[in-house]
Parts: sequence; C-alpha cells; structure tokens
Amino acid sequence: METQALQDLYPDDLAHCFGCGRLNPHGHHIRTFVEGEETVTRFTPEPHHIAIPGSVYGGLLASLIDCHGTATAAAAGYKAEGRAMGSDPPLRYVTARLTVEYVKPTPLGVALELRGSVVEVGARKVVTRVSVFAEGVECVRGEVLAVRLR
Amino acid sequence: METQALQDLYPDDLAHCFGCGRLNPHGHHIRTFVEGEETVTRFTPEPHHIAIPGSVYGGLLASLIDCHGTATAAAAGYKAEGRAMGSDPPLRYVTARLTVEYVKPTPLGVALELRGSVVEVGARKVVTRVSVFAEGVECVRGEVLAVRLR
Repeated sequence: METQALQDLYPDDLAHCFGCGRLNPHGHHIRTFVEGEETVTRFTPEPHHIAIPGSVYGGLLASLIDCHGTATAAAAGYKAEGRAMGSDPPLRYVTARLTVEYVKPTPLGVALELRGSVVEVGARKVVTRVSVFAEGVECVRGEVLAVRLR
Repeated sequence: METQALQDLYPDDLAHCFGCGRLNPHGHHIRTFVEGEETVTRFTPEPHHIAIPGSVYGGLLASLIDCHGTATAAAAGYKAEGRAMGSDPPLRYVTARLTVEYVKPTPLGVALELRGSVVEVGARKVVTRVSVFAEGVECVRGEVLAVRLR
C-alpha cells in the first residue's frame, strides 16, 4: 500500500474540497490510495452520519464515491500519460455525472472500504466505477464520469 | 407556500437523517415544501461546502437532491392514495438509485433552490426528478428512485 494519498498530490489551490481537501478543516478528508490496478479509500462514518436507524446516510456515501472517483480518475490520467503520480503539471478532475445504486443498507458503526477501478480513459474524460464495502459486503455501487480541469 | 415541511411529518424514529432529519443536531436540516405540482427546498451552503474555488461541493448537491427526492416521493405517495400529507400510517421513502448530472459549476455564496417533480408513482416505488437552481440558472439535474419503507 502506498502511504501518500492521491489527494496529497492536489495543488494547494485545489485542495479545499469539502469531501477530500486536506486544507478544509471542516471536511471529510477522504484519502485515496493506489493498490495495484485498483484504488482504495477507507472511511468510518460518524454516528451522526445516519439515514434511518442503523444505516449510513446516502448523501455521505455519494460524497465518498464522488471524491474517490475523481481521485481514481487522476491516477488513471497520470498512468495513461506514463507520468509519475503528482508530477507537473498536476492533474485534477471534477465530476460531470454521478450515479449511485444503493444495493443494500450500509451499516453504521463500522469502517467502510471503497474500491475503485477505471472503465474508460480519454484525453479529458475518465469513467470510474466504485463499490462501497462494509465488512466485506458490497452495499453501494457507483459510477463517476470525471472531467479534467484545464 | 406551505409552512410545514414534508420532513416535519416524518415520525420521530425516522427523523434523524443527516440530510433532512429535524432531530439530527449535526445535520443539514433540508426542508421540502409542496408548491402546486412541484416541491421546493431552499438551502444556502456554508463557505466550507466548497469543491474547487467558487463552486459548491458536488457531494452536498447530491445530498440535497437525495433528501429532496425522497420527500417528493412521500408527497407523491400521500397524493396517490388520496390522503392528507402526514396522515397515519406515515409514509417514508429511502433512495435505491441516485443520478446526478452536474450541468455547470454551482456558485458558492448564494441561496440555492431545488425544484422537484414526480415522474412515476408505483405502489412501492416513486421516481422523482430534481433540479438545482442558483440565481435562476439550472446548475444540477438529478433523478431519485425512491422505495417506500415498510
């Protein structure tokens, strides 16, 4: 496992995202790592991140998928260009379309693992797929169409 | 305009949602009103709800659409059964699928207006469509497939 998150490589002026910006003191600080051909984020929701009793709030799950998906897109962008992660000029993607399928309730109170993979890499657009697992069970599936910031 | 939000009608044990639960002290307290054939939520993001500079965080926008969509589904459910909003037994919906299209950046620092409408009403499933407007401009479009809690 790499110890540097993809979000650690975002330039300072693009590192305030509420979901994953390291410079946002109020945010979720989502951190995504490359593991082989996949990307991984681990996140434990707070008790107040509740939907109905016992379940994680769907908007938080959508947020995790969103930021994990754009980080996965950045990793794919560097790789497609044969560049080291974080090398200049920095690559940063934003979400154009987000689809989230809540397959089953996501239990609150346990660590979640998001695993991402790349479906398609274009010059400006990257499509990534993300699944959220709780104790090894896939609870949510998402797809992110990410667009490279100019 | 009605002064009672649809979320005010959710039973106490289902009113802790981080997005729209009136009983969650840490949540967003999204409040949805019926206006004619549409539903409306007004929400002003905080400065820390940032994505890239000047823009609202996409995960928050997904959250707004999520809770607005399920509230719209509840309104549609009562209406389809010819019942008064909030009459017993209470109707509460959860999201099975959420799709969000970020048409253009949503400016941070202004009040947002979400407008929802019903696409399809079934016995258990309701499909709703939601748009997010900033100063009259549609910035985000979403669709929520909501399922009635038993």
